[in-house]
Amino acid sequence: MQMQQQQTPVDNGVNVDALMGAREVLRDAPAAAQFTWRAECEWMGGVHSRSTVRGFYGLGEEQAHDKIFTVDADHPPQFAASDNGATPVEIVLSALASCLSAGVASVAQNRGIQLHSVKATVEGDMDIYGILGVDADVRNGFSAVRVNFDINADASQDEIAAVVSQSQKRSAVFDIITNPGNVKVTVS
Amino acid sequence: MQMQQQQTPVDNGVNVDALMGAREVLRDAPAAAQFTWRAECEWMGGVHSRSTVRGFYGLGEEQAHDKIFTVDADHPPQFAASDNGATPVEIVLSALASCLSAGVASVAQNRGIQLHSVKATVEGDMDIYGILGVDADVRNGFSAVRVNFDINADASQDEIAAVVSQSQKRSAVFDIITNPGNVKVTVS
Repeated sequence: MQMQQQQTPVDNGVNVDALMGAREVLRDAPAAAQFTWRAECEWMGGVHSRSTVRGFYGLGEEQAHDKIFTVDADHPPQFAASDNGATPVEIVLSALASCLSAGVASVAQNRGIQLHSVKATVEGDMDIYGILGVDADVRNGFSAVRVNFDINADASQDEIAAVVSQSQKRSAVFDIITNPGNVKVTVS
Repeated sequence: MQMQQQQTPVDNGVNVDALMGAREVLRDAPAAAQFTWRAECEWMGGVHSRSTVRGFYGLGEEQAHDKIFTVDADHPPQFAASDNGATPVEIVLSALASCLSAGVASVAQNRGIQLHSVKATVEGDMDIYGILGVDADVRNGFSAVRVNFDINADASQDEIAAVVSQSQKRSAVFDIITNPGNVKVTVS
C-alpha cells in the first residue's frame, strides 16, 4: 500500500496471486492436481494433418477451453510435400519456446520484474539419415536443441538470467524433451 | 504396368518415389542430410506467445517454407490466463499425433495400402504438483502419453497395426518425447 509501489506496479499480465492461491488449495487436494491433456488429429491427405484441442481433464472434472484450437502440420516442398503447415518438429520447437516464455513471464511477475519484450529463437539439429532409414544408429529426433532469449526488462542481466533459469526448472515441455517419456501407441 | 494395377492405383498423396530417390541421393551426401529446424517466439503478454516458422537449414543451404506459419500458445482460464491458444503441452501432443500420422500415410503408400481415413487421439497425463513446485519429486512433463489410431484402409487389421508400428520407428517426435534430449538455453 506504499505510494511508491502504486506508482510503479509490475504488470506482465500474469495473475500470480491466483496461481499461488491455486497452489495452496491443490497442496491439500492431490487428486485435483492430476491432469490429462488431449489432442485429436485428423489426416488431411499426404503428410498433412490437422490437430484439434478442445478440452482436458483436471481439477477433478472435465474442463473446456474457451475456444477450439487447431494446429495444421505438413512437410515442406523440399520433402515433396504440400507445405500446408509447419513440420511436426518445428511445432515441437514452438511449444518449447512458448513454454519457457510463459515461465519467464510468470517468474518475472513473481519477482517483481517488469518485462518489456521477450523473444526466443529455437533451433534443433537433426541428421535426417534417421527418419530416412539410411543409418539405424542415427536417432530420428534432434541431436541438439538451442534456445536463446533476448529479453528487455527492468532488471540486471544476472536477474534476467536467473528468471530464465527458473523458467527451465518448471517447464513441462523442457522436461518432456530433455527426459525420457513413456508413450504407448495402440490401434483400435 | 499390369491393367489391374492401373485400375486401382494406391494414392495417399505421398510421393514415395521422390522420398526414395532423395534417400538414395543423400546416402552419398551425408553433409546434405544435416538439418537445423527453427522457430522464433515472441511474448504477447501474460503467458501468451506466438511462434513463427519461416525456414530451416538443410540440403547444404538455407531453405524457405512456401508460407509463414504461426502457432499461438497460452494457458486456459482454469490457470487464470487468457486462452489465446492451446497450451504448450497440448501443442506437443498435436505434434506427436501429426508426426505419427504422416508416417502412417508414408508407410501405407510405400506398402501399397490405400488409406481412407486416419484419426488419432492423444492423451498426456500430468501431475501439476511438478510445474506448481509443490513436490520436487514430481516431474514437470507427462507421466504417460497414449496415442490411439482409428484407421479405415484397404488392409487387414494386422497390416494396419504393422503400418502404425513402422511409423513409430521412423517418427522424429516419438523419438524426441521417448528419449532424452540435449537442450541448451542461453540469454543474449
